Amino acid sequence: MKDISMEKIVNLCKQYGFVFPGSEIYDGFANTWDFGPVGVELKNNIKRAWWKRFVQEDMNTYGVDAAILMNPRVWEASGHVASFSDPKMDCKKCKQRFRADNLIEEHSNGKVAAEAMSNEQMQDYINDNHIVCPNCGGFDWSEIKQFKLMFETSRGTVEGNKDAVYLRPETCQGEYVNFLNVQRTMRAKLPFAIAQIGKSFRNEITPGNFLFRTIEFEQMELQKFCKEQDSMVFYEDYKKRALEFIEDLGLSSDKLRYHDHDKLAHYAKAACDIQYKFPIGWEELNGIHHRGTWDLSRHGEFSGKKMEYQDPETNEKYIPNVIEYSIGADRLTLAILCEAYEEEQLENDTREVMHFHPAVAPYKAAILPLVKKYHKDKAEEVYQMFSKSFMTTYDETGSIGKRYRRQDVIGTPYCITIDDETLNNGTVTIRDRDTMKQITLSLNDAINYIKEKIEF
Amino acid sequence: MKDISMEKIVNLCKQYGFVFPGSEIYDGFANTWDFGPVGVELKNNIKRAWWKRFVQEDMNTYGVDAAILMNPRVWEASGHVASFSDPKMDCKKCKQRFRADNLIEEHSNGKVAAEAMSNEQMQDYINDNHIVCPNCGGFDWSEIKQFKLMFETSRGTVEGNKDAVYLRPETCQGEYVNFLNVQRTMRAKLPFAIAQIGKSFRNEITPGNFLFRTIEFEQMELQKFCKEQDSMVFYEDYKKRALEFIEDLGLSSDKLRYHDHDKLAHYAKAACDIQYKFPIGWEELNGIHHRGTWDLSRHGEFSGKKMEYQDPETNEKYIPNVIEYSIGADRLTLAILCEAYEEEQLENDTREVMHFHPAVAPYKAAILPLVKKYHKDKAEEVYQMFSKSFMTTYDETGSIGKRYRRQDVIGTPYCITIDDETLNNGTVTIRDRDTMKQITLSLNDAINYIKEKIEF
Repeated sequence: MKDISMEKIVNLCKQYGFVFPGSEIYDGFANTWDFGPVGVELKNNIKRAWWKRFVQEDMNTYGVDAAILMNPRVWEASGHVASFSDPKMDCKKCKQRFRADNLIEEHSNGKVAAEAMSNEQMQDYINDNHIVCPNCGGFDWSEIKQFKLMFETSRGTVEGNKDAVYLRPETCQGEYVNFLNVQRTMRAKLPFAIAQIGKSFRNEITPGNFLFRTIEFEQMELQKFCKEQDSMVFYEDYKKRALEFIEDLGLSSDKLRYHDHDKLAHYAKAACDIQYKFPIGWEELNGIHHRGTWDLSRHGEFSGKKMEYQDPETNEKYIPNVIEYSIGADRLTLAILCEAYEEEQLENDTREVMHFHPAVAPYKAAILPLVKKYHKDKAEEVYQMFSKSFMTTYDETGSIGKRYRRQDVIGTPYCITIDDETLNNGTVTIRDRDTMKQITLSLNDAINYIKEKIEF
Repeated sequence: MKDISMEKIVNLCKQYGFVFPGSEIYDGFANTWDFGPVGVELKNNIKRAWWKRFVQEDMNTYGVDAAILMNPRVWEASGHVASFSDPKMDCKKCKQRFRADNLIEEHSNGKVAAEAMSNEQMQDYINDNHIVCPNCGGFDWSEIKQFKLMFETSRGTVEGNKDAVYLRPETCQGEYVNFLNVQRTMRAKLPFAIAQIGKSFRNEITPGNFLFRTIEFEQMELQKFCKEQDSMVFYEDYKKRALEFIEDLGLSSDKLRYHDHDKLAHYAKAACDIQYKFPIGWEELNGIHHRGTWDLSRHGEFSGKKMEYQDPETNEKYIPNVIEYSIGADRLTLAILCEAYEEEQLENDTREVMHFHPAVAPYKAAILPLVKKYHKDKAEEVYQMFSKSFMTTYDETGSIGKRYRRQDVIGTPYCITIDDETLNNGTVTIRDRDTMKQITLSLNDAINYIKEKIEF
């Protein structure tokens, strides 16, 4: 089985209702994507699986859902206002804007690490190597300037006051600023974690690669607050649990690897990505970061509130250490789409099939009346019954073989055929997506059979 | 039982981990709220219940999850760029900004319908009646100007190009622009609906009233596409289904009423709200709108794409009519919080209790070891068992009575006491939140008992 190309997965997603280009009827809106009827179920299932594993089943983790628009002081404390930017250059000929570091990295085939260079060094490198505009071939560059990555808007409720308001570029600040609230209301004892799933926005100049990098994306992440002496244990623990989670969802071990960071942020004590072998190569799927006391200290400094924890036994007060575990919901959706795809050679045929884990498959069951004329009424009744328990789809058009193929490519694990046996004995045939084998069960047994299979 | 005041519900939400003021450590950020550990579960359960009812169990409804940032042309077509604004006035003395129409409506105790007045008429009314600034008491108003309600930001990927990009002020455009995509990929036949749950943003000048009106809010809505001759049937149908849904979630009939609109948008054929009796009075909870062919026609016009449906039997092509059903997830959460609250007089005591429908209750079960020393290990084991099936919490501190009270006020329907009987016979005591009666069951029976109760 060959790996799927990015182009193929984009087309397949568009064709079968997983993902459409954002605002497509207006020729799109660069690097935004809309999840279609099939994709929204897939992504929601992935988010639910994450929440179940890391919040629901973890006694010491508390969820939150913080506002996207936060007090601008949050982004001063976090350092984003001062330094969250990319070096940009404009081609004076065609007016297109590029990231200087990307131009250098592409030109040198990744051999030159431009992120360590100053703007001046990059400018010199581009001049010395005569790097031309990838769009028009011109060589007439503007100076390199820092381009802010936070989307800025303004509230304007007071006359003349145009205070900048930002779309959050990361969700984790919603946990940090609520550390005291959650600790107090949940009477939480260290170690504990605060988790969140939510959207973030980054005004990136050269994003791309389908769901891999978008200007609007959804993060699933948690911040574990702990004592310094326990922190490396939790760091290692989340490295392990993060890997287990994505393997349990079906990503294969040989396409996953840890990537420890050599260069750390000045406050960080350790950092590691888990990379997945996407069609575009090995890229970050999630990160585990030991952030020390940096975030809570900064918020303490900027807000004047004591971001401390008082040990109930020793009465000692201290700022906890933070281990961050973060994974992109869109990236994970992309990885699962790529991993699940197979163009399978059958005896007299080929088929395209998505081998999703049943827990994340968009539809769990497809109800197929064998002959529309005779079995439609019963099939609709069965649909009503099944859809009380899980996402179910219905298809009455074309041969059963064709209908199986349609369900295969959107990854429906079970096809339920409604035929005379259903009318006479109340039994249905369940066809398994992966093995293509069939079994016969009563309606109630069929529901319970599927319920068991879709557990995670 | 008295109705709860808004102040009381705000404090209760803050105290018990439902909802915190947004960015609270920075003295907040006006009209944003963060859902805490208990609130996020409540809201997610409400969203899930809606999706189950209106998408999962409806054969002809397809979900989407469209990007918040859309091509700006969308908002030209929708009319928002031209006319989505409020009349604002600045107090020149204290610099606060107000909505002129609100000032008039408050001053006249709602007797003057300012929304029908021109800016000039409002200015005259304010002068004639000497309406002063509610903040500083001054009478030195600026001219009335239209204040845009869409948050504006910019992408800036091309030099000098500062094209405005908007945060969507409503989610429904994500369904309209994807009408053709969904119809094609799902091979959908009219009538069908597209549904979405997602965030919208409105830069309102005088929002407020806790979750009732926030600058960032989450909508749950669907657009039913149908033939004109069927449209009034679907309009009536969704009026009925919308009411059923919120009644099934526990809102009482005597606090709900239909409110048909007298004044309709020029394109609309009918419009109706369902109002709930909030602590601030009767206010809109959801809307059902007959939008005719307006939205698809405008997008057809502005995009140049034919937003038509071809009848598979007659081959006739036409632009479908649209029935919109929309409900605010935050508003519904607020309504459910207000409705569920009771300060109950017991024989020798009072208790605060949230009578949530078990399907939306944040935690379904609380695991309580009777004596920490003896029953903690078993209780943790039971937590692990139960939390595989539903949100479960754990509390080992204080007397059983106190722990019951803590669960009552966050609405946990079932408290499970772990005692010697659990160690010896594997049975637990289940205490019902509403009746306060107890029954004894085996662990597995207890899980199944709760699973059945939390169905929706």
